[in-house]
Amino acid sequence: MSNDAELHELLTAPPVETRRPVAPGIEPHLYRPVPLLDHGFVRVVDYMGDDAAIVQAARVSYGRGTRGRLDDRGLIRYLMRHRHTTPFEMCELKLHVKLPIFVARQWIRHRMANVNEYSARYSILDREFYVPRPEDVAVQSASNKQGRGHALDDAGALRVLDLLRGDALRAYETYEALLNDDGTGAPVAPESPQVARELARIGLGVNYYTQWYWKIDLHNLLHFLSLRAHPHAQREIRVYAEAIGSIVADWVPAAWEAFVDYRMEAAALSRAELAVVRAALAGADLGPLLEGSSLSPRERRELLTKLGR
Amino acid sequence: MSNDAELHELLTAPPVETRRPVAPGIEPHLYRPVPLLDHGFVRVVDYMGDDAAIVQAARVSYGRGTRGRLDDRGLIRYLMRHRHTTPFEMCELKLHVKLPIFVARQWIRHRMANVNEYSARYSILDREFYVPRPEDVAVQSASNKQGRGHALDDAGALRVLDLLRGDALRAYETYEALLNDDGTGAPVAPESPQVARELARIGLGVNYYTQWYWKIDLHNLLHFLSLRAHPHAQREIRVYAEAIGSIVADWVPAAWEAFVDYRMEAAALSRAELAVVRAALAGADLGPLLEGSSLSPRERRELLTKLGR
Amino acid sequence: MSNDAELHELLTAPPVETRRPVAPGIEPHLYRPVPLLDHGFVRVVDYMGDDAAIVQAARVSYGRGTRGRLDDRGLIRYLMRHRHTTPFEMCELKLHVKLPIFVARQWIRHRMANVNEYSARYSILDREFYVPRPEDVAVQSASNKQGRGHALDDAGALRVLDLLRGDALRAYETYEALLNDDGTGAPVAPESPQVARELARIGLGVNYYTQWYWKIDLHNLLHFLSLRAHPHAQREIRVYAEAIGSIVADWVPAAWEAFVDYRMEAAALSRAELAVVRAALAGADLGPLLEGSSLSPRERRELLTKLGR
Amino acid sequence: MSNDAELHELLTAPPVETRRPVAPGIEPHLYRPVPLLDHGFVRVVDYMGDDAAIVQAARVSYGRGTRGRLDDRGLIRYLMRHRHTTPFEMCELKLHVKLPIFVARQWIRHRMANVNEYSARYSILDREFYVPRPEDVAVQSASNKQGRGHALDDAGALRVLDLLRGDALRAYETYEALLNDDGTGAPVAPESPQVARELARIGLGVNYYTQWYWKIDLHNLLHFLSLRAHPHAQREIRVYAEAIGSIVADWVPAAWEAFVDYRMEAAALSRAELAVVRAALAGADLGPLLEGSSLSPRERRELLTKLGR
Repeated sequence: MSNDAELHELLTAPPVETRRPVAPGIEPHLYRPVPLLDHGFVRVVDYMGDDAAIVQAARVSYGRGTRGRLDDRGLIRYLMRHRHTTPFEMCELKLHVKLPIFVARQWIRHRMANVNEYSARYSILDREFYVPRPEDVAVQSASNKQGRGHALDDAGALRVLDLLRGDALRAYETYEALLNDDGTGAPVAPESPQVARELARIGLGVNYYTQWYWKIDLHNLLHFLSLRAHPHAQREIRVYAEAIGSIVADWVPAAWEAFVDYRMEAAALSRAELAVVRAALAGADLGPLLEGSSLSPRERRELLTKLGR
Repeated sequence: MSNDAELHELLTAPPVETRRPVAPGIEPHLYRPVPLLDHGFVRVVDYMGDDAAIVQAARVSYGRGTRGRLDDRGLIRYLMRHRHTTPFEMCELKLHVKLPIFVARQWIRHRMANVNEYSARYSILDREFYVPRPEDVAVQSASNKQGRGHALDDAGALRVLDLLRGDALRAYETYEALLNDDGTGAPVAPESPQVARELARIGLGVNYYTQWYWKIDLHNLLHFLSLRAHPHAQREIRVYAEAIGSIVADWVPAAWEAFVDYRMEAAALSRAELAVVRAALAGADLGPLLEGSSLSPRERRELLTKLGR
Repeated sequence: MSNDAELHELLTAPPVETRRPVAPGIEPHLYRPVPLLDHGFVRVVDYMGDDAAIVQAARVSYGRGTRGRLDDRGLIRYLMRHRHTTPFEMCELKLHVKLPIFVARQWIRHRMANVNEYSARYSILDREFYVPRPEDVAVQSASNKQGRGHALDDAGALRVLDLLRGDALRAYETYEALLNDDGTGAPVAPESPQVARELARIGLGVNYYTQWYWKIDLHNLLHFLSLRAHPHAQREIRVYAEAIGSIVADWVPAAWEAFVDYRMEAAALSRAELAVVRAALAGADLGPLLEGSSLSPRERRELLTKLGR
Repeated sequence: MSNDAELHELLTAPPVETRRPVAPGIEPHLYRPVPLLDHGFVRVVDYMGDDAAIVQAARVSYGRGTRGRLDDRGLIRYLMRHRHTTPFEMCELKLHVKLPIFVARQWIRHRMANVNEYSARYSILDREFYVPRPEDVAVQSASNKQGRGHALDDAGALRVLDLLRGDALRAYETYEALLNDDGTGAPVAPESPQVARELARIGLGVNYYTQWYWKIDLHNLLHFLSLRAHPHAQREIRVYAEAIGSIVADWVPAAWEAFVDYRMEAAALSRAELAVVRAALAGADLGPLLEGSSLSPRERRELLTKLGR
C-alpha cells in the first residue's frame, strides 16, 4: 500500500536512462492513480513493449516474407483481423488496482495473468467499502437476467444506500472489536482477546475494497477488455475496463485501433444470420426472411441490432 | 443447485456400462456429499483415469525402455520422486463444492483448473453463512503473522460468534429487502422496487456460501493439496483439502502413496542446511554447527524440526 | 506404444460398470485408431462428460434462473453464441495420436492441454516417416504466403517424393549406425560404440513420426479445431483436426452443432464491413460502397466471400 | 531475423529516458547475442522489473506486516524458501533465441510462456544445422536411460560428425531443389515447379536451427532453469539454460542467490530418507540404516550423494 509520500516521490522522480524500447504514450500514465468508483483506482506500475514490439515478434514468425509488404500499422491490423494472437503477447502491462471484492471476484476469473493480492490474513483492511452513486441504483432488468433496468427514484435510491452503508459500518465495528488492535499491534481493550485476522474479517461484505498488483500480456488484456468493457458486464467492473482501455489506447495506438475495428465494434454473424443477410442483399425483404429463418426471436432482435435496424 | 430428490436419484441410480477404464476405489464416492464446516460440502461429480492411466502415459514417453524394468507402483514412485509431472496430468477429477466466499477466494488462485461458479448476478443466494465452531475461534498467532494461536475461552468465543451471526443475519435482511422477491419473481412489497441482483448482494459478507463445479488434473490437484492441506493454510480451506485428499487416496492409491512419501512428508534442505547435516553426519555437534552457519534463527528452528529434534 | 495384441484386447474387452455419466455416441470410438496420413492415427483413449455435463455446469452458474426457460440444446446454443466458454471446459477428451514431428510442432502451440510425448532420448524411433501422396504435392501459393497452390503433375510429384524418401531412408541408416543396437540393447557391430540416443536422432527429419497422449477440455479442443480445421491450416494437421471433429460430433452432438453454427460457419464483420453491409441493406450498391470504404482490396474480396458474392 | 546492421544499431544506440524502474545489471546484456553451440544464440530483447519489483508485490500481499521486519534480500529469501511464488511472477524477461529444432521441442514443453517462432511455412530456413563438437559425441549411458556416458575417441567422433553433416547437407540440397527459389522469389530453374514451403521443409533434420522470441515471468523462468540447467537435461539445452542463468544473476541478484540456495543446490529428502537421516544423527550407522530401510538401491545411492558421501 503506497502511502501519499511514496506516491509523490514516484510521480516527481526524474526519468532514468534505459536501453530498452520506450513507449512514449504510456510514460505520463506511470504511477498516477486513476480514481474509480468511490475509493478505487487503477494505476500503471510498469510496462514492456509497444506497437513495434508486436511487429518485431511477428516478423520473426513470418520472416522476410512480411518485410516491406505491409507497414507496421498494416501488419498489426492484419494480425488482429486473422487472430494471429501470439505477437500481441509480447507486450506486458503491470497495474496496481484497488477494487471492491465482488469486482475482484469477477476479475480473477481471467486466469492468464499474474496477481499479488493484499492479504487480510496478514494485514488489516481499511474501513473502505463501495456504495453506489444514487443514479447507479437500478432495478433488476426484466429482459436480461443478469442486468439492471431503470434507476430508482431518489428517495428509493437513498434508502438502499443507507441500508448498505449501515450494514458495512456495523460489520467494520465487529471487525475492529475482534481485532482489538490499536494500529501498533497493542490491544485497545487489554482484557479482551485479539482474534486472528483471518477470522476477524469473515463478516466484512464483498463491497469492501481490496487491492492487488496485476500483470498481463496485451493479448489476454484485450480479451479481458472485450468481456469486461462489454455492455453486459456489471457496471462496477466496466469502469475499470474502460479506464484501462484509455491507457492501452495511449500505449499501443495501432493495436488499440485494430482492436476497436476488428473486435470491439465488430459483430459475428452465425451461419443462419449469414444466410439471412445474403438473401437480403440479393433483394429479399428482411422481415419475411427473419420469419422464415431458424433464428429465435431473441436472435432476430440481435441481428437487427447488428445491422443497425 | 441439486435438490434432495435429484441427489437421491443420482445416489441410487443403477450403474451403467462403459468401455472406459474404471477406478473402483472412487466409484462409491460418486455424487455423495462430504459435509464440511457448517453448510459446505465437497462431492465427486466425475473422474477420468486411475493409477494405470499414469503408467500408460509415462510408457508413451519412455517407450519400451521402461517396460518390465519397473512395475506400475515402482514407476509411479519414480515419476513422483523425479518430478516427472506430466503423466499425473492424465487423470482428471470433477468436484461440486459448496464453500464460504473467503475460502473460494483462496481456492481460485489455483489457475490451472476449470470452474463454473454460481452467479449472484443471475440467481439468489440462500441465507447460508459460515460461523466457526466455538473451539475454532482463536487469537492471532504471535509467531505466525497469518496464523492462529490458542482458542478463546467459551464466553469469549460465544461473544465472537454472536457478533458474526448478528451481522450476517442483518446483511441478509437488507439483501431480502432490496431483492423484494417472494421466490417466484413477484415482489413481496408491490409498491417497492426490486433492486438488481448484482447490486443487492454487495453487502453480504465473505462468510456467505457460494458453490461451484471445479475440474482439475491430478498433478495440479496434488499441488493444490500440498499447499492447502499444509498446516499453514487457513483451517477453513484445510478441511476441504483433507477431505479431497481422502478421496484421492481411494481413487489413485499408488499415486497418493508416492505423493505422501515424496511430497507431503518430505522436506527440502537448502544448501546451507545440507552443509550442516553433512557435517553433523561426519561427527560434529549440531549446536555449534548451527551457530556457525549462515542460517537465520528461524531457519535453525525449522531445520531442527525437519530433523526430528 | 500399444502393440497389436494389446490393442485387440482393448477393442474386444467387455464393457464394465460405472456410476459416472456415459456418452453413448463416443463409446464405439474408444481405443479404435483412425488411420491418418501414411502412418499416423488418432484414437480416443478416454473421455469425461457429455452434452448434459455442459448444461449441468451452466446451471450451477446461472442457478434456478435458467431452469425451464431453455431446454438443454437451447442452453448450449445460448452459451456458444454468447461465448460463455467455461461450461464447455467441463468435458475432457484424451487421445493417443501418432503424427509427423512437423505437425506435432504446430499442434503443441496449443498450450492449454496435457501432453506426454514419446521420448527419443529414452527410446528408439521406428523407421516411419511421412511422405505425401502424389496429389498433395503442390506449388507455393502465389496469393497466400503460407499456402499451397495447384498440384504438381505426376512426374514432378514423383520426383519430389523420391527425393524426400531417399533422404529420410539415408537419415535412418545413419541413425541405426549410430545407435548400433540390435533391438535388445546389444550392439550390432560389437567393435563400434553405441552413440547416445539423444544424439543419434538429431539428423532425422521433421517428417519422422512421433506419438503422444494428449488430453484437453472441450472448450480448448473446439478452439484448436477452429484453427486447425480451417482451410488456411496446413493440410497435414487439418486431416487430424477433421478426424477429431467427427469424433466430437458423435460425443457431444448439441455442442458440436452449436459450434458449427456459431463458430465454424459464422463470420466476423469488422466495423468497416458492418458499415458497408448496413448501407447495402439500405439500398446502396455494393460496388461503390466497397470503393468508398476504408477496406483494403484484400478485405473487400474477403467481405464478398463472406456475403456469398 | 535481425541482420548485422540492425544489430549494430541496437547495440550502439544511445540510451533513452524512462520513468519505469531500471535494473542496471541487465542493461549491458540488452540485444547482445551470447553465442551458443555452433550457430545458436540467446539475447535479451526486453525486461520488466528487478529485485525491488518482487518486494513491492510481496508487500502488497503482506501489507504493513512485513515492512521493516525483513530487509529486501531477507524478504526475497523468505519468499523463495516458503515457495511464495507469485511475487516472482512480477518480473518478465523477453529473449530472442536461435536453437536447434530438437532443443526447441524440449523447450516448448514449458507452457507458461509467450512464443513467436520463425515459420518455415512462410519463410525460407537458412542452411544452418547443429553438429556437436567432437568431445560432445558420447555413448549411451549404461546407468541413465536418457543420458550420455563417456565420449567417443577422436576417430569415432569424427565418423559420427561426418555422417550427420553429410545427411544434413543432402537434406538441404533437396530443400533448395524443391523451393527452386533464387532468394528473390524467382525460380532458379524456370521450367521446374516451386514446391510449397510448408512441404519442401519436411525432410530437414531436427538439428536444423529455428529461432523465436520467448517471453516468460521470473517464477516460470526459474522453474525452467531448475529443470533445464539440471545435470540430467540434455547438454544442448543445458548450455542455453546456463547462459540464461548468468543473465538472471545480473538482472535480479537477490532472487538468483535465493534460487541457488533454496532450489538449485538444495535437496529434497523423502519420508524414508528423513527417517534414515534422523536415525543417523541420533548415532546409528548409515550402512545398516540404509539396509534396513525401504529405500531402493538407487534411492540409497541418491541419498548418499545428497549427504556428500
